[in-house]
Amino acid sequence: MSKDTLTNIQNQLVEFSKARDWEKYHSPKNLSMALSVEVAELVEHFQWLTEEESRNINGQKLNEVKEEVADVLLYLLQICNQLNIDPVDAAKQKLLKNAVKYPPR
Amino acid sequence: MSKDTLTNIQNQLVEFSKARDWEKYHSPKNLSMALSVEVAELVEHFQWLTEEESRNINGQKLNEVKEEVADVLLYLLQICNQLNIDPVDAAKQKLLKNAVKYPPR
Amino acid sequence: MSKDTLTNIQNQLVEFSKARDWEKYHSPKNLSMALSVEVAELVEHFQWLTEEESRNINGQKLNEVKEEVADVLLYLLQICNQLNIDPVDAAKQKLLKNAVKYPPR
Amino acid sequence: MSKDTLTNIQNQLVEFSKARDWEKYHSPKNLSMALSVEVAELVEHFQWLTEEESRNINGQKLNEVKEEVADVLLYLLQICNQLNIDPVDAAKQKLLKNAVKYPPR
Repeated sequence: MSKDTLTNIQNQLVEFSKARDWEKYHSPKNLSMALSVEVAELVEHFQWLTEEESRNINGQKLNEVKEEVADVLLYLLQICNQLNIDPVDAAKQKLLKNAVKYPPR
Repeated sequence: MSKDTLTNIQNQLVEFSKARDWEKYHSPKNLSMALSVEVAELVEHFQWLTEEESRNINGQKLNEVKEEVADVLLYLLQICNQLNIDPVDAAKQKLLKNAVKYPPR
Repeated sequence: MSKDTLTNIQNQLVEFSKARDWEKYHSPKNLSMALSVEVAELVEHFQWLTEEESRNINGQKLNEVKEEVADVLLYLLQICNQLNIDPVDAAKQKLLKNAVKYPPR
Repeated sequence: MSKDTLTNIQNQLVEFSKARDWEKYHSPKNLSMALSVEVAELVEHFQWLTEEESRNINGQKLNEVKEEVADVLLYLLQICNQLNIDPVDAAKQKLLKNAVKYPPR
């Protein structure tokens, strides 16, 4: 992964929305709904599988899951764009907080 | 953002789970459920706001939203860890696919 | 609505699953995932609408929403079946609790 | 269950919202978001359980699940109120459709 990759993707998403005049739809409220829909499409792949089966998906199923993961990430980054949130910074801060909240055994 | 940042976070998440003996719980099936719960906590911040209000959150509300965004990203990266999915590669491929599916106006 | 209608539907759902040998899949865990997927299909209908537009859907859109509402109710009733929960009794108790928690203005 | 029980609950929900001046918030769009949040609170109870464990919850855990089931039903009924959907009629129609779509073995 090259430097600033997520930032590049975030910038591409801004251009993508502008070129299609979609910015008016992309309130954080609406984007959070779209995010939840994409997560459900990921959940749908796993709902009738055993946990063990879910650890061993491959082929076409894995490709479809990969695509849903992408959709989730893309909507999450658009929420970050709208609210000026740095996702990596947010994740790092949360990791530190979790390390305190859940001490290792 | 330094090079390989997401990969660093993904590696930290592996260590974090190992140190707490949580790997047995982290099937993609279970992680997709946890991901959906975190997304709902994000949605909850926006459910009674107007779209306009959702574009203008700040202060404590924005901090809480930032933390939920982090939780969503962290669970998404754990799914990627379990299934050997490169999230940035997946997102880039999906962007190309979307550009074909939705031509600019 | 005739007496015991929800109970009738719940009984039909039991027969439906038995006849298809689906009971093995219908753990509360799996059913909660399926429920979340159906709710997302409902959310999807509203995600890019304004609140005002969402109050005024009709025709084919309303029919599709009605079908998603049915799917949500059917999975919820199947969870009730599995855990011996009386949905109407649960709702009545929650209404009383809410009336105390949120006093009228 | 007495005749018209769901209808009684739906009527109580109308009164409840009126008495608190909440009707302005209760667009189908917003209610679908609230519904998804309540479903996630149900999912949260099951996310780290095995399927077998989810079939055998009891005591306080079962009481909490019952309360989340109630919340899901109450928001679903409020969506029905807003859009003049009869939930039982919708469920019956969907059952017939499912019987055709998935023939018994």
